[in-house]
Amino acid sequence: MNTAAFYHRPESEYAYLYTEDILHIRLRTAKADVKKVAVLMGDPYLLQEEQWYQQETPMTLLTSTDLYDYWLLETSAKHKRLQYAFHITGVDGLTAFYTDRGVYPFTEAFTALPNFYFRMPFFQEIDRFKSPDWVKQTIWYQIFPERFANGDTTNDPAGTLPWSSQEPSRTDFFGGDLQGVLDHLDYLADLGITGIYFCPLFKASSNHKYDTIDYYEIDPDFGDKALFKKLVTEAHNRGIRIMLDAVFNHTGDSAPQWQDVCKHEANSAYADWFHVNSFPVVYGENGNFEGQATLSFESFAFTPHMPKLNTANPEVQKYLLDIATYWIREFDIDAWRLDVANEVDHHFWKKFHTATTALKEDFYILGEIWHSAQQWLQGDEFHAVMNYAYTETIEDFFVRKQITPSKMVAGLNEQLMLYRQQANEVMFNMLDSHDTARLLTICRDNKDLLRATLAFTFLQHGSPCIYYGTEIGMTGGNDPGCRKCMVWEKAEQDQAILHFTKALIALRKEYQALLSFGRLNWLIVADQAQVIGLERIDQKQELVAVFNQGTTNYSFETKDKVRMDHLVLKGKSSYCIQPGGFIITVKERS
Amino acid sequence: MNTAAFYHRPESEYAYLYTEDILHIRLRTAKADVKKVAVLMGDPYLLQEEQWYQQETPMTLLTSTDLYDYWLLETSAKHKRLQYAFHITGVDGLTAFYTDRGVYPFTEAFTALPNFYFRMPFFQEIDRFKSPDWVKQTIWYQIFPERFANGDTTNDPAGTLPWSSQEPSRTDFFGGDLQGVLDHLDYLADLGITGIYFCPLFKASSNHKYDTIDYYEIDPDFGDKALFKKLVTEAHNRGIRIMLDAVFNHTGDSAPQWQDVCKHEANSAYADWFHVNSFPVVYGENGNFEGQATLSFESFAFTPHMPKLNTANPEVQKYLLDIATYWIREFDIDAWRLDVANEVDHHFWKKFHTATTALKEDFYILGEIWHSAQQWLQGDEFHAVMNYAYTETIEDFFVRKQITPSKMVAGLNEQLMLYRQQANEVMFNMLDSHDTARLLTICRDNKDLLRATLAFTFLQHGSPCIYYGTEIGMTGGNDPGCRKCMVWEKAEQDQAILHFTKALIALRKEYQALLSFGRLNWLIVADQAQVIGLERIDQKQELVAVFNQGTTNYSFETKDKVRMDHLVLKGKSSYCIQPGGFIITVKERS
Repeated sequence: MNTAAFYHRPESEYAYLYTEDILHIRLRTAKADVKKVAVLMGDPYLLQEEQWYQQETPMTLLTSTDLYDYWLLETSAKHKRLQYAFHITGVDGLTAFYTDRGVYPFTEAFTALPNFYFRMPFFQEIDRFKSPDWVKQTIWYQIFPERFANGDTTNDPAGTLPWSSQEPSRTDFFGGDLQGVLDHLDYLADLGITGIYFCPLFKASSNHKYDTIDYYEIDPDFGDKALFKKLVTEAHNRGIRIMLDAVFNHTGDSAPQWQDVCKHEANSAYADWFHVNSFPVVYGENGNFEGQATLSFESFAFTPHMPKLNTANPEVQKYLLDIATYWIREFDIDAWRLDVANEVDHHFWKKFHTATTALKEDFYILGEIWHSAQQWLQGDEFHAVMNYAYTETIEDFFVRKQITPSKMVAGLNEQLMLYRQQANEVMFNMLDSHDTARLLTICRDNKDLLRATLAFTFLQHGSPCIYYGTEIGMTGGNDPGCRKCMVWEKAEQDQAILHFTKALIALRKEYQALLSFGRLNWLIVADQAQVIGLERIDQKQELVAVFNQGTTNYSFETKDKVRMDHLVLKGKSSYCIQPGGFIITVKERS
Repeated sequence: MNTAAFYHRPESEYAYLYTEDILHIRLRTAKADVKKVAVLMGDPYLLQEEQWYQQETPMTLLTSTDLYDYWLLETSAKHKRLQYAFHITGVDGLTAFYTDRGVYPFTEAFTALPNFYFRMPFFQEIDRFKSPDWVKQTIWYQIFPERFANGDTTNDPAGTLPWSSQEPSRTDFFGGDLQGVLDHLDYLADLGITGIYFCPLFKASSNHKYDTIDYYEIDPDFGDKALFKKLVTEAHNRGIRIMLDAVFNHTGDSAPQWQDVCKHEANSAYADWFHVNSFPVVYGENGNFEGQATLSFESFAFTPHMPKLNTANPEVQKYLLDIATYWIREFDIDAWRLDVANEVDHHFWKKFHTATTALKEDFYILGEIWHSAQQWLQGDEFHAVMNYAYTETIEDFFVRKQITPSKMVAGLNEQLMLYRQQANEVMFNMLDSHDTARLLTICRDNKDLLRATLAFTFLQHGSPCIYYGTEIGMTGGNDPGCRKCMVWEKAEQDQAILHFTKALIALRKEYQALLSFGRLNWLIVADQAQVIGLERIDQKQELVAVFNQGTTNYSFETKDKVRMDHLVLKGKSSYCIQPGGFIITVKERS
């Protein structure tokens, strides 16, 4: 038995309160190396009296990756305290006692030792990771405001180009604004989405507005506060939540605070609002050139246009937290997406969590983090991250054909095991965004592939997001290509894809509880045939989906109701899934 | 190669800022399975430009346990951001690329992928674990106040027994008090200790005072606030720091808040200060009997005399934080030891850390946790824990002879790898306490063994603690035996042990920097001979110690200066360490 592969960590994603009373205990072992696992557990103060170490509770094999098996026990504790350790039996028949002090022989000489056990010392409701329920029900829609719709030409900036008149460059303006969004709220409601994620709306120089000048103002190119308030109200009236983009890692170099530092240098009242290594900090001097590693201050990447804010400075904290709460208090927004969230300190994000959830208990905090993010997802900072690590893995198989189905499944399972279940339930699953090429483009305009990839993603844990225009078959490469003007002429929209997206959203809503909370099982992982079959199952329902990404037909037998299909032929007693096709069936279990 | 045994976790004890600029990166691999490890690393925004993934920086084998090898790289980052991943070469010659997304072949197809790397997104000084320097220099002395010295008979409680007149029961009083400590401060200064850890001093019913009635009063049996203030001043004058015991998990059942709940039940203003499941809560009713699992409220263990405080209640937080800061503000204490710290919530401890360190930047926070404690040692709660898991492992070999030298070394190394280096530097290493039998008693009165065990512990990372009386050879079993009256008659003190303890303390002070920061290497781990040899080494000095716990003489050759020895005979060209003996030598390296 590979005892060196055992892993468990108390008070982490390996041992956490799922609900107030239910504790999840996970264990990692080497793949296909362990026959069974049982947990010895009980109250720390009753070990002698109850001798509970003589009883065993079996764990369930939860999921597997290419290297590991993961085991789960859902349990509880009458007195809200638990000691536990693992009795592990290998496929080789050997046994081990895996404890807080390491691996020992499974004998009473060790199982009776109170200090050898892992601990959940007390079920602390205040420390429990709580994720907002509404997010589990949300289908998101991401809007890049400058390119969604121009509803008011009077606020167009100088030099605004006619809508869709050309491929965008990095500096073009096309006049998109909030009135444009308001004008199309019914379109979005009809599409079925229930949450809008807005790229930045605040006053800034660029078309993307990630270089904030004033966090308290709606950019005049987009509208004003009254209009934004109306937009929130109208969206809420349609059951659509609003998430704004908080760019708190850095500010724009036109922000008055930075301008003051440029002017007064060390004497500026804002000198400690940033991370200045040496003065001057003005553009073009002292090594401060675009993209150069010679910058005399810390910034986003190596651009002198985005000086990094010193969030360890209490003044900066107060400033940013007031902004964070202002837009909740005054405009009733429902969520913040946090730009470059990983480069801002944890102390600040803990305060951010406290301040925002104090105003709205079910406020949603989404961090932009592209890598593993456990430290931010302990329950007191973010609820979720932009799930690139998950969706890139989906695309690596479906779109880029770089990995096998089994490697994809391993990767997805590994990502799921990085976080608590309640975090996975609100992960933000987008296949494209303003920071990536568009899905249809990476699919090389293969619309069958777009459908399959979208459908597969909609069946996963977490809340899916549609990037504006993806629902009508828009294309575009990396920035600026992915930021083209939204196509509003029906004739130029792909109505079939639109119809498909609506159906997929409707399906996600119909089976929301199952897709949010139901167990995920991989039924078919066929590397040769390039076929993936999965099941989502709870006590009431079972949803089965099979995706054929191979080059030959795949025959699938079922008596269940077909809920959605594409490139599927009905045979006598089975379905023929053609290359690129998929089928989704549902069965009521009770 | 056992790839399933690889382990790394960003932003944990596996990747942390040691100083403002120095990052420690650790990696775990299966024992003796890996030949070498190199790190590929660089700035996230310079991966393309610099192609830094084509350069490798070797890791050092830091330490080993029975199952694992641990590797270390100390590094830095010019722009305070780092991406990194591991190139691992097995003893079997196979290679692997261990990344944030799992294990892959070591090929440029993977090493060039920016999103595959682990991240230290930004070196956040505010998030860095900082441990107080003075603790690294401290030798602690634990005082159980009721039993140290009776300096003022006028404050003796009714029924006080004559000092040392009998073995203590759980309810006896012998009159120990603060004046007694004050009277013996010069004794402590002469002994050489530089910190006193006081068991609770606040008003309470019992002799141990863990059942607090009033956190704002010194127990009248011990003295008053003026006397305590004098004691702190006099201690500080002698270079001795003061640590008090904060019993915040629970209060005593005589505390006015609990009494109010007993009387007014759900209508009490303090009803939500505790965890009440059903009323009444008075002793003797509704299942509320000593030691019964039927208690109608949460308590410490199962005693109705210690109702658990609801630290999630903001009123309770305010109350306890005011107490925590009051004794710093008004009396200038240097540290809090936190009783039953693991059963109090993390939110509260974070606030506690903020409030106390705001008053004294180098305040020391020590949690009573007997099991693995990573979640409390992230830098924003405690600085250290009472290191029972470490010292019990020492005792399991030296004292109880339950494990081999190699198992002890494995256990100690495993414990060291649970925490950041700066946490290990301030761990609280006690071999006995008011909660355990005395060291000499578990040594079965073998004073050679006591010496060896103490000396071995004093050479470890962390600050050692002497439990009152251990320095003069006092004995005693578990509570109440370990709480006997301090022996003050010189004739009844073991002067040889006292002399030895002084010498050991002096040695620890002389080589403090080496013992706090120097690397620990295990030179001899002889299971057959029962001999342990270790080295502490830095750029200036090298200290070597060899302990013979076997039954035959052990010959040890050295040209270094002998700094301390016991049961050692000097031969012609070597030293003969007799059974039970040990030798400590030092060499200047520069």
